[in-house]
Amino acid sequence: MISEKMKPLVANNSVIRQMFEEGQKMAEQFGAENVFDFSLGNPNVPAPKEVNEAIVDIVNSVNPVKVHGYMSNAGFPETRKAIADNLNERFGTSFGVNNIIMTVGAGSALNVILKTMLNPGEEVICLAPYFVEYGNYIRNYDGVPVVISANPEGGFMPRFDELESKITPKTRALIINNPNNPTGVIYPETVIEELTALLQKKQEEFGTVIYLISDEPYRELAYGGKDVPFLTKYYDNTIVGYSYSKSLSLPGERIGYIVIPDESDQATEFIEAATISNRISGSVNAPSLIQLVIERCVDAKCEVGYYERNGRTLYEGLTKLGFECVEPQGAFYLWMKSPVEDEKAFVAKAKEYNILMVPGSSFAGPGYVRLSYCVSYEQIERSLPKFAELAKEYF
Amino acid sequence: MISEKMKPLVANNSVIRQMFEEGQKMAEQFGAENVFDFSLGNPNVPAPKEVNEAIVDIVNSVNPVKVHGYMSNAGFPETRKAIADNLNERFGTSFGVNNIIMTVGAGSALNVILKTMLNPGEEVICLAPYFVEYGNYIRNYDGVPVVISANPEGGFMPRFDELESKITPKTRALIINNPNNPTGVIYPETVIEELTALLQKKQEEFGTVIYLISDEPYRELAYGGKDVPFLTKYYDNTIVGYSYSKSLSLPGERIGYIVIPDESDQATEFIEAATISNRISGSVNAPSLIQLVIERCVDAKCEVGYYERNGRTLYEGLTKLGFECVEPQGAFYLWMKSPVEDEKAFVAKAKEYNILMVPGSSFAGPGYVRLSYCVSYEQIERSLPKFAELAKEYF
Repeated sequence: MISEKMKPLVANNSVIRQMFEEGQKMAEQFGAENVFDFSLGNPNVPAPKEVNEAIVDIVNSVNPVKVHGYMSNAGFPETRKAIADNLNERFGTSFGVNNIIMTVGAGSALNVILKTMLNPGEEVICLAPYFVEYGNYIRNYDGVPVVISANPEGGFMPRFDELESKITPKTRALIINNPNNPTGVIYPETVIEELTALLQKKQEEFGTVIYLISDEPYRELAYGGKDVPFLTKYYDNTIVGYSYSKSLSLPGERIGYIVIPDESDQATEFIEAATISNRISGSVNAPSLIQLVIERCVDAKCEVGYYERNGRTLYEGLTKLGFECVEPQGAFYLWMKSPVEDEKAFVAKAKEYNILMVPGSSFAGPGYVRLSYCVSYEQIERSLPKFAELAKEYF
Repeated sequence: MISEKMKPLVANNSVIRQMFEEGQKMAEQFGAENVFDFSLGNPNVPAPKEVNEAIVDIVNSVNPVKVHGYMSNAGFPETRKAIADNLNERFGTSFGVNNIIMTVGAGSALNVILKTMLNPGEEVICLAPYFVEYGNYIRNYDGVPVVISANPEGGFMPRFDELESKITPKTRALIINNPNNPTGVIYPETVIEELTALLQKKQEEFGTVIYLISDEPYRELAYGGKDVPFLTKYYDNTIVGYSYSKSLSLPGERIGYIVIPDESDQATEFIEAATISNRISGSVNAPSLIQLVIERCVDAKCEVGYYERNGRTLYEGLTKLGFECVEPQGAFYLWMKSPVEDEKAFVAKAKEYNILMVPGSSFAGPGYVRLSYCVSYEQIERSLPKFAELAKEYF
């Protein structure tokens, strides 16, 4: 007897997660080295050594009642201060402890943000293709996802004409993900300026507050030193959701944060509501030991070069075989056009070669597939001959 | 601009949490040894040494990509197996890996359970006095809390007459918390038998499924070897939410689990829905390193004797001073009658003596106060002269 709301979710359970389970079974059956699983964003790069060093040092030197105990629901003040200082130094912002709320990863950050702001029936705009969970997160609070269609001919930048026509008095927020999952593109400053000017204009036109929710798990994964604009500087009503899942390779630990700038609408009340929202959603607080680790590892560097090499090798290898791909600029996803219109058939065909990819329709981007290349370089090298066999089915 | 649903929550923010923040400020002002903070259930007993040993051993010996990485949303199979085996051994059940879902503590477990089952307007019964967050958790999914009034003359056991009259076709679940927060009583087997027989009768009468949600963070904290009935053996539609916050002193780490027995209604579908619910609520999965720790520490013992001594000393000390208290049988809460009808005035008066307690109305139990005695024994000893001064105001 599950709820009516859960029924369609069970019927259409996450394709990505099903693939993850399937990939594990295939690895057992065929041997891990013979399965080319590009389905899940589970970093293969180990966490920087500072992380495990910090864990050992903390459990050996800090009172366990503190390490494993409750703290303020928003998180340890010293962790929040370290994050605020780090952001201020890098982006010229002026955040304090109170602007930062520690969360159970970015998934929880987005849920807390949406729970805090959404009334039933209010609309949240997503730019296709987008991370499929956004829809679930929005519907958790009876919000309505409004999708702006993908723009392949425009390099997967936002379609501003369509966007302008779809912002209404019911628009409560727009979610942006930069660098982008699943396309691997980075929205440059010019795009951000156009986007925030449009939101500003619409706020004034409707006399409403339209939040720009910046989902930033891939912020540190920008290739070639490419700039990823920090959005609170462009638009007051920006709320940031961050995660260390990818930047520090800690996806299982569930650690991230929310930034609520003082410049945003009724910031004091919003901060308090978000803290309560974090508590009553059941998280209560972000995991304590890992919060203390973050305080010490706020400057640890992720191996962006590793992902960049993976991305380039995969992009060049697949392009050479005749596949049409978007050149990755960040994150660790390759967005590839399916050689046949029905990309699910293509995904099924690839599985016959032990290659696992996610169909683009899982991201509101049919006709494409996503390859998650946060895998070993060897997997990419080993996979290319298999892709060559797959290519022969089409070209 | 926060949502309409969050507005009353900001207006009436958790008294317990406000006290926690206040207690920390008072400790800075007066010195920690001069503040007698009995407000929060934050164990003072350190985690068993096996926990930190396991942490160090895991980060030193297991591949960090596994330790900190994603696993199945329901949790590491080896952790779930260790828990199932442990329950089976202790309670004669026959759970397997699939019956266990790891969660971000019991708070998250309850949210996942309620999200999985509740349709808007459905009723969930709470037995007063009860943990105040139940109401928030139920309202998160547009459910309606139905409160059975407290039964001080009956030792705070359920009022069966009132309960029977309040179970309706809209009743979706009843939450039970044993040992109980805030009263410290344990519902014995006879009460459980009467309760489950009533639920069974009402299920048959209405042709509905009524879940018994067993919230068990205090299961291991039963004094004098007192038996805490394991509810799946008494009632098929029992769903258990467990937490290691208290039993292993890990409240900040956010680790717990759900048990969904095969005997419960449409168990397979419910298990899948709960796993999805865990994912889309933003938790994604329970924190990974601590899951691996639990696998190794599933048999670690909590220092129940420590809490028992604290409870007895406080109970005897306060009773001697003239206060009327419920004798604690488990958990780590003392439920004390306010010497004046308005217990909030009593709480305010106690604060003048640097004693922090939570008013019973925060638990739908006005006229009482809750003292959380998971503090140092020294705090209890030092507090008694202060309580003596406080008592002089009333007796």
